[in-house]
Amino acid sequence: MGLVVQKYGGSSVADAEGIKRVAKRVVEAKKNGNQVVVVVSAMGDTTDELIDLAGEVSPMPSGREFDMLLTAGERISMALLAMAIKNLGHEAQSFTGSQAGVITDSVHNKARIIDVTPGRIKTSVDEGNIAIVAGFQGVSQDKKDITTLGRGGSDTTAVALAAALDADVCEIYTDVDGVFTADPRVVKKARKIDWISFEDMLELASSGSKVLLHRCVEYARRYNIPIHVRSSFSGLRGTWVSNEPQGDQPMEQAIISGVAHDTSEAKVTVVGVPDKPGEAATIFRAIADAEINIDMVVQNVSAASTGLTDISFTLPKTEGRKAIAALEKTKPSVGFDSLRYDDQIAKISLVGAGMKTNPGVTAGFFEALSNAGVNIELISTSEIRISVVTRADDVNEAVQAVHSAFGLDTDSDEAVVYGGTGR
Amino acid sequence: MGLVVQKYGGSSVADAEGIKRVAKRVVEAKKNGNQVVVVVSAMGDTTDELIDLAGEVSPMPSGREFDMLLTAGERISMALLAMAIKNLGHEAQSFTGSQAGVITDSVHNKARIIDVTPGRIKTSVDEGNIAIVAGFQGVSQDKKDITTLGRGGSDTTAVALAAALDADVCEIYTDVDGVFTADPRVVKKARKIDWISFEDMLELASSGSKVLLHRCVEYARRYNIPIHVRSSFSGLRGTWVSNEPQGDQPMEQAIISGVAHDTSEAKVTVVGVPDKPGEAATIFRAIADAEINIDMVVQNVSAASTGLTDISFTLPKTEGRKAIAALEKTKPSVGFDSLRYDDQIAKISLVGAGMKTNPGVTAGFFEALSNAGVNIELISTSEIRISVVTRADDVNEAVQAVHSAFGLDTDSDEAVVYGGTGR
Repeated sequence: MGLVVQKYGGSSVADAEGIKRVAKRVVEAKKNGNQVVVVVSAMGDTTDELIDLAGEVSPMPSGREFDMLLTAGERISMALLAMAIKNLGHEAQSFTGSQAGVITDSVHNKARIIDVTPGRIKTSVDEGNIAIVAGFQGVSQDKKDITTLGRGGSDTTAVALAAALDADVCEIYTDVDGVFTADPRVVKKARKIDWISFEDMLELASSGSKVLLHRCVEYARRYNIPIHVRSSFSGLRGTWVSNEPQGDQPMEQAIISGVAHDTSEAKVTVVGVPDKPGEAATIFRAIADAEINIDMVVQNVSAASTGLTDISFTLPKTEGRKAIAALEKTKPSVGFDSLRYDDQIAKISLVGAGMKTNPGVTAGFFEALSNAGVNIELISTSEIRISVVTRADDVNEAVQAVHSAFGLDTDSDEAVVYGGTGR
Repeated sequence: MGLVVQKYGGSSVADAEGIKRVAKRVVEAKKNGNQVVVVVSAMGDTTDELIDLAGEVSPMPSGREFDMLLTAGERISMALLAMAIKNLGHEAQSFTGSQAGVITDSVHNKARIIDVTPGRIKTSVDEGNIAIVAGFQGVSQDKKDITTLGRGGSDTTAVALAAALDADVCEIYTDVDGVFTADPRVVKKARKIDWISFEDMLELASSGSKVLLHRCVEYARRYNIPIHVRSSFSGLRGTWVSNEPQGDQPMEQAIISGVAHDTSEAKVTVVGVPDKPGEAATIFRAIADAEINIDMVVQNVSAASTGLTDISFTLPKTEGRKAIAALEKTKPSVGFDSLRYDDQIAKISLVGAGMKTNPGVTAGFFEALSNAGVNIELISTSEIRISVVTRADDVNEAVQAVHSAFGLDTDSDEAVVYGGTGR
């Protein structure tokens, strides 16, 4: 007998039918002899509807009250799910984030989990109940105010609870069959990944893959909680994310885990920066002071004739206006020529721990793009990832070309693998 | 400077406009130099919508989960109200029943308040905030589970908080201008009551007046918290309910406070009960064991010739089926002839502490009914109330006749008054 934490997103519990379907699946896990803790998001569009309501009463709702409002969403879905489970003849109890012991800091709307003290959950499952926990929410340590964890918060709740309860697995149910080698909407031949390491999953998540958020994977890696990402609409095995392959999983991993893309970023270029110490520091201090997270940063060697250089970086499009305003203020001190803003870009990333020991990967990546006629504007690399910036128009073609070139297509036999048994 | 507890019902906060209107009114009370605590119900139809959702997932939802579900309603309205108040430039914080220290027993769906420990509310208003509290909900003392207080629960929350905070007044905002001498939908000339004693209000509430529930008035009387019932749509003074008239209120009270009616009851007659000790006890023990609350009970003197008597009682129509079933089971032991069930009845009650010292009231009441051609089926009296049961068809005419006969009509100069200055 094990302890399983399952998480169901808003699309899985969008209506009464969805809730009843989830209830059946939860009961199945219980019948298989497991203790079961379920983390649930708000039903379908509930959160958006609540946000709209807030907008109707105040143009700038208070963070504390916004959290109080939004947490009504999970309260509804978790109570309904508990009812539906009881209706199937099994005992269930629902718990708010606060009752479940999800202790956070006081940063409303994007609180971080400080501690999880799941005493009530433990007691509930030990008494034979299925425990249903509200995702996305917690209670602040100092003020005892209700907080929310921000985007992807329910996944984080699930992983954090799994860690605190020393669960055997955290199952994340979603509307796709798992993690794919590329976005299946872009690459029809994208392959479902059976197993992926935490490290590769972290790189995919920070490169635009939306199945799991970076924060949730990071939490799971730190506490070594295996995640099983799978569809709530099918009984299929999904993707395991863990340190080592689990059970009967293939003891092999492709050199390349997948190709991620991201069209949510924009590129800012600061043109004609005097090439002397401290100029870059002034520029990025201004960006940091405006609380803008940047992604890639590239500086070219300066032209000897002018002593000037260009600095480019990428950032979320939503922060573009704020960044430009912050940079304009530094112009007198830095003395750059001009600013260029470009939001018609895409980032394409190739991720795989295998590239550490395979020197040809970078060259193969660039060749694939070149063969597809895709121009590269920026390059940035880590030990297990290569990212390039291209024109937004080229993104689909670029992703497909790279996916095929590295033998990731479903009908390809060329997938390069390493590790255990090989093939 | 005083401490005011205000309560707004669901119809007052039915939509964003309503919430903004309430926010203005709350801020007005604050600007007048008061500390303000606001108790709020769920928005308009929210509770009904949640009940419908529960019905879709389970035919018999668990009490614990039902309470968890329903309490989402006030969470939404209170957070929105706090946002709307902050948008007007005043500080506001919302609190759940649990956070506000509303401690109850564990009877889900109709919990009773055991204690109120409003430490956080006190701190919040002392810091200059307007505190918004979720009505209708609390947390159970032993299990720390979320509970709801049942029908009229938000009014009870308001009065209980007012008592615990030693407030100067508990203002109950509703969609009518106050307590009337009769239901204004039935009696066009019904008069708004300026002041009414707790005792008379209790009798009106238990006789069918729906403005305040008996439970809430009883709580206010026990802790001597003046209630001011008034409209959230106008700035008018409403009805004060208290031990003594407040401030500039008229030091006079009519002999009769008002005429209440109730068409929600049915009448059961047990025909041909042997007139010997213990038979009535057996009958009413059966009703009590079925957890049915009865209202009026009448037993006639038995006919000497037969040694049989009839026992009649009234009860909520909703309990009719259950009562008949329970009585059928006693038939063998009691040996009565038959049962009669009649749900086409109305109860009309005349309430007023003045009738204690005015012996003509009962006669006047019966004469008024007689003049209107209304037949009386049952009679029951208390020190300050007379109730009769009539045909349901006669109810409007009966109420109007009695209202006029006792000089309660707005254009009448005949209202009989007693106490202080007289007029």
